[in-house]
Amino acid sequence: MQKVFITGAAGFIGSTLVDRLLAGGKTVVGWDNFSAGQWKFLEGALKNPNFKLVEGDNLDLPALTKAMAGCDLVFHLAANADVRFGLEHPGKDLQQNTVATFNVLEAMRANAIRRIAFSSTGSVYGEAAVIPTPEDAPFPIQTSLYAASKICGEGMISSYCEGFKFEAYIFRFVSILGERYTHGHIFDFYKQLLDHPDHLKILGDGLQRKSYLYVQDCISAMLHVIGQGTAKSAKHGVEIYNLGTDEYAQVNDSVGFICGALGLKPKLEYSGGNRGWVGDNPFIFLATKKIQGTGWKTTLTIEQGIGRTLQWLQQNQWIYETRK
Amino acid sequence: MQKVFITGAAGFIGSTLVDRLLAGGKTVVGWDNFSAGQWKFLEGALKNPNFKLVEGDNLDLPALTKAMAGCDLVFHLAANADVRFGLEHPGKDLQQNTVATFNVLEAMRANAIRRIAFSSTGSVYGEAAVIPTPEDAPFPIQTSLYAASKICGEGMISSYCEGFKFEAYIFRFVSILGERYTHGHIFDFYKQLLDHPDHLKILGDGLQRKSYLYVQDCISAMLHVIGQGTAKSAKHGVEIYNLGTDEYAQVNDSVGFICGALGLKPKLEYSGGNRGWVGDNPFIFLATKKIQGTGWKTTLTIEQGIGRTLQWLQQNQWIYETRK
Repeated sequence: MQKVFITGAAGFIGSTLVDRLLAGGKTVVGWDNFSAGQWKFLEGALKNPNFKLVEGDNLDLPALTKAMAGCDLVFHLAANADVRFGLEHPGKDLQQNTVATFNVLEAMRANAIRRIAFSSTGSVYGEAAVIPTPEDAPFPIQTSLYAASKICGEGMISSYCEGFKFEAYIFRFVSILGERYTHGHIFDFYKQLLDHPDHLKILGDGLQRKSYLYVQDCISAMLHVIGQGTAKSAKHGVEIYNLGTDEYAQVNDSVGFICGALGLKPKLEYSGGNRGWVGDNPFIFLATKKIQGTGWKTTLTIEQGIGRTLQWLQQNQWIYETRK
Repeated sequence: MQKVFITGAAGFIGSTLVDRLLAGGKTVVGWDNFSAGQWKFLEGALKNPNFKLVEGDNLDLPALTKAMAGCDLVFHLAANADVRFGLEHPGKDLQQNTVATFNVLEAMRANAIRRIAFSSTGSVYGEAAVIPTPEDAPFPIQTSLYAASKICGEGMISSYCEGFKFEAYIFRFVSILGERYTHGHIFDFYKQLLDHPDHLKILGDGLQRKSYLYVQDCISAMLHVIGQGTAKSAKHGVEIYNLGTDEYAQVNDSVGFICGALGLKPKLEYSGGNRGWVGDNPFIFLATKKIQGTGWKTTLTIEQGIGRTLQWLQQNQWIYETRK
């Protein structure tokens, strides 16, 4: 890879990837519609002559096609990631994820760019029948529009590999944590504790078990795997990796880490039920044997990742002003 | 079910379903954009006072919503079914299948209709790792845009079950044969033999193995399963069934049946390779244990189904004028 195109370049993971690639001497074109992205995350990158930012939306195919010209690898990270609120605006996942991914593929095809890395999700396994869940788990039933849109993205990408000789790296993420974290339970909990340190509302019964991965470890994994270039010779031109760790944490563990770090003892108020919201999965734990088999390793535990996230939120409370 | 809405009502399977439901005393609203549907298939139905036809496209959500009013079950059969030509117009599956299915779900939601039956495809298993392929086969890689759009449809439907308490019956069809058959290999072969009885061009090496099901058996299976009403109590409100038989046939077997029935001995010209086209699967054979476990049985063998199809094509050569 020499010139890399990143959709969602101003987002949490996207901007961190931009910085890593620039630090590695690559040329990067960032693309973002700033629906959730933050200019502040690109402050450093914008000073680098190897970085170009183009403001635009994935639904604008001509502009996307133009912006992508001359790149040789696309990281397609832009997505509506409001998993919880899919049912409030069912068309959003279809447009921002499914149609957007189709446009990314068409823009690539128009530019004869054939390598793509895609951020999918462990949610595609629904309520998995096998835990820890491997990449070839039994064909699941989708439980959220978000996951349905991601599985559609995966399917279209794979079809382009088969039909147009693309090479794809599909990464099924657990929840990603770390600096520039802009949504998720730590974000919500810390906000609540800023507003009312004496009590904390928790969705569900607190027993939900989830996996988390530190953002720098996530990016290292993607770059490591793409560097190995195995999709070229993979069946159908597609490599699929779960990205997570061999740990998971209960929501209650997470509450303990956060309150401990802040020195708070709030009253815990549970909304009840074993799910945080409709379509939530009470236990997400992905098998990571395949990604670990490539030689990649995590550097932080979940507890350490939560610590870093919290520290960043404490130092960057401006984020709560922009994400309302 | 009392008043049934059918998308693709003028198609091969749709119009056959219309006739069966009317014969069973149901009220039926048919919906079709006539991109592939045939007025002639509805000649009988249109004489029945319990049938109403509305001409419209699934991409026109307001019209679709209006047409669906008062129905209590939707068969969503309309689709772009040109599996082979997906790569020539990659946006067609996205629009006619993915976005169309979303619109069907939204129209249902607006009308408080919660029961849906969906025609998916055995192609969603890609090049299946397990054959015969059960409904819970290992998570496959999609190899065609058609299958990717169907898996997206399945995912959105399942999400509506989880989120909006829909009940869904998802049927993964093998190739369907019989009266009113309007595309597929028998259609192509017979057309060729009408044009030039002395030679026959065959895509691939003729060794591709595929499963087939007779259209009336397909419809019996759907009505049988929906009659049992098990989706209501199924996990996530979704029942998924493979629809096929415990037989498969090689393309060469099929050539033999057809030429035998027509009394022809054409020279066979193979295009070569083990696939008929890019993204084709050389072996499709679905496990049918689940559907057979409901008590449903096929009435025709594959050979008999091919015979019926051929007989119908011989008597209805007008179909070749309308499907060019």
